[in-house]
Amino acid sequence: MKQRHILPHYRIAVVGTGAVGGYYGAKLAHMGRDVHFLLRSDLEYVRKRGLRIRSKQGDFHLQKVQGYGNPEEIGPVDVVIIALKATQNEALETLIPPLLKENTTLITLQNGLGNEAFLAERFGADRVVGGLCFVCLNRTAPGEIQHLGHGLIVLGEYGKYPLPRTHDLQWEFKRCGVVCQVAGDLGQARWRKLVWNIPFNGLSIAAGGVDVGHILADDDLLYLTRQLMREIIQIARTLGHEIPESFVEDQIRKTKEMGAYLPSSLIDYQKGKPVEVEAIWGEPYRQGFNAGAEVGRLEMLYHQLKRMVREKQEQVALSGS
Amino acid sequence: MKQRHILPHYRIAVVGTGAVGGYYGAKLAHMGRDVHFLLRSDLEYVRKRGLRIRSKQGDFHLQKVQGYGNPEEIGPVDVVIIALKATQNEALETLIPPLLKENTTLITLQNGLGNEAFLAERFGADRVVGGLCFVCLNRTAPGEIQHLGHGLIVLGEYGKYPLPRTHDLQWEFKRCGVVCQVAGDLGQARWRKLVWNIPFNGLSIAAGGVDVGHILADDDLLYLTRQLMREIIQIARTLGHEIPESFVEDQIRKTKEMGAYLPSSLIDYQKGKPVEVEAIWGEPYRQGFNAGAEVGRLEMLYHQLKRMVREKQEQVALSGS
Repeated sequence: MKQRHILPHYRIAVVGTGAVGGYYGAKLAHMGRDVHFLLRSDLEYVRKRGLRIRSKQGDFHLQKVQGYGNPEEIGPVDVVIIALKATQNEALETLIPPLLKENTTLITLQNGLGNEAFLAERFGADRVVGGLCFVCLNRTAPGEIQHLGHGLIVLGEYGKYPLPRTHDLQWEFKRCGVVCQVAGDLGQARWRKLVWNIPFNGLSIAAGGVDVGHILADDDLLYLTRQLMREIIQIARTLGHEIPESFVEDQIRKTKEMGAYLPSSLIDYQKGKPVEVEAIWGEPYRQGFNAGAEVGRLEMLYHQLKRMVREKQEQVALSGS
Repeated sequence: MKQRHILPHYRIAVVGTGAVGGYYGAKLAHMGRDVHFLLRSDLEYVRKRGLRIRSKQGDFHLQKVQGYGNPEEIGPVDVVIIALKATQNEALETLIPPLLKENTTLITLQNGLGNEAFLAERFGADRVVGGLCFVCLNRTAPGEIQHLGHGLIVLGEYGKYPLPRTHDLQWEFKRCGVVCQVAGDLGQARWRKLVWNIPFNGLSIAAGGVDVGHILADDDLLYLTRQLMREIIQIARTLGHEIPESFVEDQIRKTKEMGAYLPSSLIDYQKGKPVEVEAIWGEPYRQGFNAGAEVGRLEMLYHQLKRMVREKQEQVALSGS
C-alpha cells in the first residue's frame, strides 16, 4: 500500500548535490517527495541518466531527477537542504535568495561550527535548522553515490529548543527511510561530533596521512587524541554544553571498530580539494579562545592544518589541475 | 708574554668530543690547559693529526691532542666537561666514574632540561655545574670543527646561587678566550633558552623541514611561535623563573637577523641522527604538566616530534645505514 502524506507536501530544494545532498535528496525523491536538485558538474548527466544509489540497505535508481543549473529555475520552496562544503558558504549569498518565500526553512547538513550562524545572519535565525549527518558516503562516478554505512541525521533548532517544525521535518525524513532524531541542544550535538572530528580528522592529516587505526595504534597520537578530546569537552562546557568525561573512552572504543577508516578531511586533503578547516577547527578554536577556555592543543592543530591545507592548495594550483 | 696561571692548573677531561666538546676543549688546550679528550670515531685521526678549528676569530690547529678511547686511560680529573648529546646520557653512567676524585666538578654543556638532575642523582649534586652554550659550530670533517659565530658560555650552579668555583671556572674559560658569564639562576637561563629552542627547533621539524626565516614569514607558524613562547614563559613562571613578556618580541627580532638559519635539531632530524626530544621538549613538558601549568601547545609539539623522530629512526634503521 502506497503511503499517504499526512503533512502538507513540501517543495524541497537541495543546494549542493554532492554525496550528502545527492543521497538524502534521492531518499526523499524516491519516496515521491518533490525534490529539486541544484547541480553543477553533473547537471547534464543527472538530467539524462538520473541518480544511482548503491547501498547494502538496497540499491535504487532515481530515473527522473528534477535537476537545475541555477536556483532561479527552481524558485521558492518550503525547505532548502544545504549540503555544500562549508568552504563554499559565500556562494550561498546568491544561491539561497531565489529559493525563499515567507516561511522557507533552511536545513544545513554541513560540518562543523558556524554554518547556522552564517545562514541566520543573512536570511534570519527563524529559518535555520541544523542537521548533523552520521553517514559514510562516497561519490563514485557522475550521478552515482555509494552508501557505505550509517545514515542518521540529528536535527536541531539554532540556539533554541525544538519547535513543531523540527519534529515535522524529522518525521518527513523518517517516512522516507532516513533514521532521524531531534536534538534538544543542537550546540551540544555539534560539539559532541567535534570531539571525534577534531582529533581524528585533524591528526590524520597533521601526522602525514594516516588512518584512524594507525592513530589508535600509535602511543603518541593516541595520547594526543585523548588530550584533544578532553580539551574540546572543556571548551564545550565553558560554552554551556555539558559532555561527560566518559565520552572520551566511548569514542575511542567505537573508533576501534572502524579499522583503517580514512577520515573524509584526509581524503579531501590528499586529493588537493578544499578542507573545511574553519568549520571543524577554526570556529571551535575561536569560540573557545573568546570564552577564555584552554585551547592550546586545538590552537596548534588548527594553525598547522591551516598552513598544510594552504600549501597543498598552492601546490595543486601550481601543478595546473 | 705568556700568561701565567693564577689558579691551580686544572686537569680537565672532555667527554663527548663532537663540535661543542671539541671546540671548547681545543680553546682550553690551545692556551696550555691540561685537556684530555675522550674520543670515539675520530680517535686515531685526532691522535695523529690533532684538532683543527676554523673560525673568523682566527683558525688554529691543536697539533698534539691528548686523545683517549676510554675514561680509565684518562683517570681522575678536576673538571669534566660533558658535551655528549643528551640522548646518550646513559653512557655517562660508565664514562664518568673513572674520572672522579673527591672534588671533581662536572660541567654539562648539554641542551635542554634534565641533564644536571641526571648527573646530580648519580654523582652528587655538589659536583654539578650547568653550562649553556650560545654558539654556532659544525663538525666538518674528522678532527675539524667550523666555528660559525658566537661562543658564549653561561655557567650556573644546579639549584643554588653561584659559588666561588663557578666564578673560578668562568675566569678559566675567559683566560682561554671564551666569552663566559655566570648566571644567578641557572634554571631561569635554561628556560630563557628554551623559549627560543622549543618553538624554532620544534616547528622547523614539525612543519616539514623549514628554516627560521620560513617560520617568521608564515602567518600561522609565526602565530604558533609567539603562542608557544608565551606558554613556555608561563610554565617557567609557574616553576619560579620569571621571564618578562617582552622577551617574546626580543627573540622574534633577533631571529629575523638569522636569515635562513636551520636549527641544529632539524639538521640532526634530516640526517636521521638522534634528536634531543626529551631534553628540549619532553622534560619541559613534564615539569610544566606536573606543576599544573597550561601546557597544551608544548604537549602537541612534544608528542608530534617524538613520533616523527621515532619513525625517522625506524626508517634509517630499515634502510640499513
